[in-house]
Amino acid sequence: MPNLFEEIQPIVCRDGKVFLLDQTLLPTEMKWMEIDSIETCRDAIKRLAVRGAPAIGIAAAFGMFVASRAAPKKSFDEYYAHMKEAGELLATSRPTAVNLFWALKRIDKKILESREIPLSEIDAVVKKEASDIHKEEDEACLAIGTHGQEMFDGSKDCFTILTHCNAGALATGKYGTALAPIYVAKERGLDVRVFVDETRPLLQGSRLTAYELFLSGVDVTVITDSMAGFVMSKGWIDACIIGCDRMAANGDAANKIGSYSLALLARAHNVPFYVACPLSTVDMDTRHGSEIEIEERDPAEVTEGMGKLTAPRGVKVYNPAFDITPHELISGIITEKGFIRPPYEQALAGL
Amino acid sequence: MPNLFEEIQPIVCRDGKVFLLDQTLLPTEMKWMEIDSIETCRDAIKRLAVRGAPAIGIAAAFGMFVASRAAPKKSFDEYYAHMKEAGELLATSRPTAVNLFWALKRIDKKILESREIPLSEIDAVVKKEASDIHKEEDEACLAIGTHGQEMFDGSKDCFTILTHCNAGALATGKYGTALAPIYVAKERGLDVRVFVDETRPLLQGSRLTAYELFLSGVDVTVITDSMAGFVMSKGWIDACIIGCDRMAANGDAANKIGSYSLALLARAHNVPFYVACPLSTVDMDTRHGSEIEIEERDPAEVTEGMGKLTAPRGVKVYNPAFDITPHELISGIITEKGFIRPPYEQALAGL
Repeated sequence: MPNLFEEIQPIVCRDGKVFLLDQTLLPTEMKWMEIDSIETCRDAIKRLAVRGAPAIGIAAAFGMFVASRAAPKKSFDEYYAHMKEAGELLATSRPTAVNLFWALKRIDKKILESREIPLSEIDAVVKKEASDIHKEEDEACLAIGTHGQEMFDGSKDCFTILTHCNAGALATGKYGTALAPIYVAKERGLDVRVFVDETRPLLQGSRLTAYELFLSGVDVTVITDSMAGFVMSKGWIDACIIGCDRMAANGDAANKIGSYSLALLARAHNVPFYVACPLSTVDMDTRHGSEIEIEERDPAEVTEGMGKLTAPRGVKVYNPAFDITPHELISGIITEKGFIRPPYEQALAGL
Repeated sequence: MPNLFEEIQPIVCRDGKVFLLDQTLLPTEMKWMEIDSIETCRDAIKRLAVRGAPAIGIAAAFGMFVASRAAPKKSFDEYYAHMKEAGELLATSRPTAVNLFWALKRIDKKILESREIPLSEIDAVVKKEASDIHKEEDEACLAIGTHGQEMFDGSKDCFTILTHCNAGALATGKYGTALAPIYVAKERGLDVRVFVDETRPLLQGSRLTAYELFLSGVDVTVITDSMAGFVMSKGWIDACIIGCDRMAANGDAANKIGSYSLALLARAHNVPFYVACPLSTVDMDTRHGSEIEIEERDPAEVTEGMGKLTAPRGVKVYNPAFDITPHELISGIITEKGFIRPPYEQALAGL
């Protein structure tokens, strides 16, 4: 449907219809699916057809627009009861990304503020709020990309970055979070190269990050997750950068499983380790990373991830989707409001 | 063909025929293939139908027996020229495991020693040497398992071990190297549990280690490689143990890619990190790990490992099969001659 540039974005709303790029099928198939009900939206988030904290927030907001379209409009109370139910359903899709709850709260607030307007206009209000969230996330990503230039050492001809999972355009709006500084650097003519962990079990690194960087003409090399330490030991990596699914008030970062290991490996090799996220990902109500709920997912993602049994049937599997990188291991946090250095607690509260 | 116990071994010689369990098909299919030519043997080693340093050595030795059977027996010189060629062909199968070269050297030496016997008896001599190598490796593994009991803290009711790749029965003869202490502990009634990294790209952890432990009734849990740090951070792991493909004289250990990362993660969590290997894996001619050649394998192992494209077609891939764990990160080396603590250089030279 969209042109090449538009392909590298996870959600589009066109002529009142909402489409998601089904990311479970990338990189071999590019299939847009219509979100035509709140159940479709929940299912898409749950099975990772759309993923990445900011993109989940955007998808949930547009999901609420779809719910609004379908809701009865005889009385505000009846309408609101339906929307409340839709929001509660979406909230059960995934537990860790704070943007989901933040987006649902924004839509809820907007609906309550619109109690006095004719109900015939409420769909447009919800749609505008979803579009605003989308637009704000896009702007935040571009700002992250700009502030992120601080990570590039001006004295180097070429700068090589290692990233994990996908915190790119496909996880957000344009530019992404962790990949935003890379895209902006490339636009500015810097020779920036990327190593990406494939990111088991669902391979968002090789399927999505490698895909969008490759399409964008960025020099990208795929490695398995277990190669990161060896690659660092060769002195090939100038910095690591990852996105974030939820950041606690003290700077502890919940992100894709393996991020914590990567941070430890970076520390062991004196490689700076950065986390990029919009402020919508920071949850000031969560004081420490230890308070963040870690989603455990279906063992089949590990044992049958490629549609083929790769472990003995019935064997035990532990499959946490995230881990927590303690703030002590983070060299800097890149937000749309600026590049933050430790101590993070004060700096985050200030923003 | 064999019974359940015999299934967990990679090579059998029966009625003068040599069979390999094709490990690329595990855990879903158990297929024995006959090694009926030196080319079949080389191909089986190259494509990892048989893998693991000791098992490669055993397979190469039996491959030389198969070559001997087919070699002309008119004069010793003609016979020896054929065998020399066969050995050279096998030597090109894989570059890192020292056991391959060690086994070929032993067969070569035995043939040269047998120059005076009737050529009609030479096949039996080669076969006996291969069988001796096999038997000695089995005995070495059992001795490693026995010496390895030193790693279990007597004060604990339950001991949990993390391992990487497969250094079990399937990589050696009975018992394995890294898994030998686990099997022996289980036989002695200890409650020992195992976490195993799936070990991308070829999943020897989930396909082979989980398979043989599961069949043997050991409590085993599969994780992706990137989960190891998180699992350690929870305090679940009492020790890590891995095998080794080649050990330098100073104790530096070349092993499956990811071993080095695991050693760093273990160090960061104060988890002891052990390497188990027979002395045949120690290469006293290699002084440091940096001198060990690291095999790079086909990018398709990473991008099409499961028969399905998981990265954009044409993207760059770096796929080293091994990394080097420096001796400083190793808490102890378990050999058939005893449990070695640092400094390793002296201790290894002593054995």
